[in-house]
Amino acid sequence: MKILVINSGSSSLKYQLFNMETENVLAKGLIQRIGIDGSYLEYESGEGEEIVIEKDIPNHKVGIELLIETLISKKHGVLANMDEIEAVGHRIVHGGEAFAESTIIDDQAIKKLEDVADLAPLHNPPNIMGIKVCQELMPDKPQVGVFDTAFHQSMPEKAYIYALPYEYYEKYGVRRYGFHGTSHGYVAKRAAKMMDQDLSELKIITCHLGNGASVAAVKNGKSVDTSMGLTPLEGLVMGTRCGDIDPAIIPFLLEKEDMTPSEIDNILNKESGLLGVSGVSSDSRDVEDAAAEGNHQAEIALELFDYRVKKYIGAYTAAMGGVDAIVFTAGIGENSIDTRANILSGLEYLGVELDKEANDCRGKEVLISTDDSKVKAMIVPTNEELVIAKDTMELVK
Amino acid sequence: MKILVINSGSSSLKYQLFNMETENVLAKGLIQRIGIDGSYLEYESGEGEEIVIEKDIPNHKVGIELLIETLISKKHGVLANMDEIEAVGHRIVHGGEAFAESTIIDDQAIKKLEDVADLAPLHNPPNIMGIKVCQELMPDKPQVGVFDTAFHQSMPEKAYIYALPYEYYEKYGVRRYGFHGTSHGYVAKRAAKMMDQDLSELKIITCHLGNGASVAAVKNGKSVDTSMGLTPLEGLVMGTRCGDIDPAIIPFLLEKEDMTPSEIDNILNKESGLLGVSGVSSDSRDVEDAAAEGNHQAEIALELFDYRVKKYIGAYTAAMGGVDAIVFTAGIGENSIDTRANILSGLEYLGVELDKEANDCRGKEVLISTDDSKVKAMIVPTNEELVIAKDTMELVK
Repeated sequence: MKILVINSGSSSLKYQLFNMETENVLAKGLIQRIGIDGSYLEYESGEGEEIVIEKDIPNHKVGIELLIETLISKKHGVLANMDEIEAVGHRIVHGGEAFAESTIIDDQAIKKLEDVADLAPLHNPPNIMGIKVCQELMPDKPQVGVFDTAFHQSMPEKAYIYALPYEYYEKYGVRRYGFHGTSHGYVAKRAAKMMDQDLSELKIITCHLGNGASVAAVKNGKSVDTSMGLTPLEGLVMGTRCGDIDPAIIPFLLEKEDMTPSEIDNILNKESGLLGVSGVSSDSRDVEDAAAEGNHQAEIALELFDYRVKKYIGAYTAAMGGVDAIVFTAGIGENSIDTRANILSGLEYLGVELDKEANDCRGKEVLISTDDSKVKAMIVPTNEELVIAKDTMELVK
Repeated sequence: MKILVINSGSSSLKYQLFNMETENVLAKGLIQRIGIDGSYLEYESGEGEEIVIEKDIPNHKVGIELLIETLISKKHGVLANMDEIEAVGHRIVHGGEAFAESTIIDDQAIKKLEDVADLAPLHNPPNIMGIKVCQELMPDKPQVGVFDTAFHQSMPEKAYIYALPYEYYEKYGVRRYGFHGTSHGYVAKRAAKMMDQDLSELKIITCHLGNGASVAAVKNGKSVDTSMGLTPLEGLVMGTRCGDIDPAIIPFLLEKEDMTPSEIDNILNKESGLLGVSGVSSDSRDVEDAAAEGNHQAEIALELFDYRVKKYIGAYTAAMGGVDAIVFTAGIGENSIDTRANILSGLEYLGVELDKEANDCRGKEVLISTDDSKVKAMIVPTNEELVIAKDTMELVK
């Protein structure tokens, strides 16, 4: 069975084609600058052949047509024709309270999605557009929605209600939703497998540390709390997002700097985090380089990042009444040896003991705690596309 | 030695007169509705005699003159004349980065205070006014400033810098300051005494839970982190304050509800917290009553309150690499048996074991953990006025 996975943004679209028997990627690609001058498609077949097709791509429909052409092209293609594809899985950022699991997208689902689009005005509309174009171009293929928020719908009220006037929850759905759900769910499952224990009996803290970053408390296989909130802004220090701050800072800055709500939103989302503190870059590798050269703001940025994760691990251990495993994933979590070491240092009181040698490693599924460590720590490379493909397969079977 | 302690607000002023030999309160009172119709002074002598003087009090000067008159009046007074008073201690909300300890207030200090008044525009100006009036009316008495923020000036950068553009810290002093410092410092000291151990060797988490509420991590006698931030809005769920939320909620609500920055600030500070979630009251006792009668929003409000404190205890344990004692103080911390029990329940993994019988107690300095409990838990009634009086005495000695 072959499954196409699509992540449709406002001006870009990522895709991967899976062979589900082997879980191999047959082809993958990226369409850039949709509706903007200089649009193109980058394509890589499973054999590693890379091509770039520069072409005017005024909208998502033209983009997905080009994507299909490439997949079945005689020269670069990997499919004889589109009938080989069983179904299309779509990454959808925000499912609100309407979607607690992956779902086959019918008209009713589209309507529900449009109802919650308000909660993720930058992400959901292009997600929906990707689905609609696929419905149009592949009317006989099931379209499946896989939601960043769904895994966290198991959170109890005490974790998802904010201490705001309750009417904002009722009127606008202002509550914690959490994101990176496919990743948190996947790496928690892998961690249980690595421990050879039943996921339903474990307390796991999953640290998805990338340019966007979040922590989740996964108790007995279910998310019971997570650091992102109504939007992906809350929680950890990220590449360009501030994470947790005193909310009073916002009215303070609005008045001091005479900004509009959307200007401050832009600063909190795009000019803060590692970039804002270091003044150097949103990429943690650049910030590490600057810190190594003695740039004090870069040093603080990294300390803030690590310290925030450490505090969330402590908080979620308290939330679950203990912890059995701490999992690192995503760009920084999989690759930054120092970040993992700094985060775990000082957590010996929990019974976690880092194996420095094992931790000297990047991007591999591996235990990084010592054999004696009561609490296990591990790296688990995330694979959100594969989870989307698997969920899609499950639903169309 | 006798010390007068003053807490001067914009339209009210609280005061206590201490005999420092015995640390007894000789008299205390409250001036209400300064500059508003229906102003009055409530006064209670150490003997328990209570009087109310209704009088036009157009400004702080008239109020403090009345306060002095009462203290030396033949009928209700406790002093022969004002010469008996050695000095006046003032509670000051925000000392910014200028004040890391209590200070005798001279012209230079007034200037520094005026420089940071921006950070607490509702509190610092009336605090400064109280000092200036006392300087005018008692020109030969030293005036001492004791700051809510000072105890937390020992925090490291990783705890006080926000992941915002660094220029906001440089330009406006946007950073974590923390509040309730006199209380956190005092109860940490008492806790060490109760444990018969050296404060400088202990890791203590102090939970100041009142209508305003904050948690502090006190390592080796110094504050290393605290939940309030630039302002007292951040952190815990409070009577009417939201504490931690996704910062993106603010621009979201500003647009949805078409509010101004000061309107949203008002909602976050005055209409959120226990009041906002329960819809019942900002007073935790009322919310407890409503929850007992099955009001679901009241139940959530209390769960949120307890859960947030529990997560901070976990976070600060991680921040300090362990914890030796957890201290409860202030109105709710001293009096709510259920709140303490709920917060500590599930923290057994830290080695804290609640003694249910000992916890069945209000407002007393008492251990509430079992004899075997590795981590001690205790109630310590706070006494911010006494700390202000003691600091004042130390400085004028």
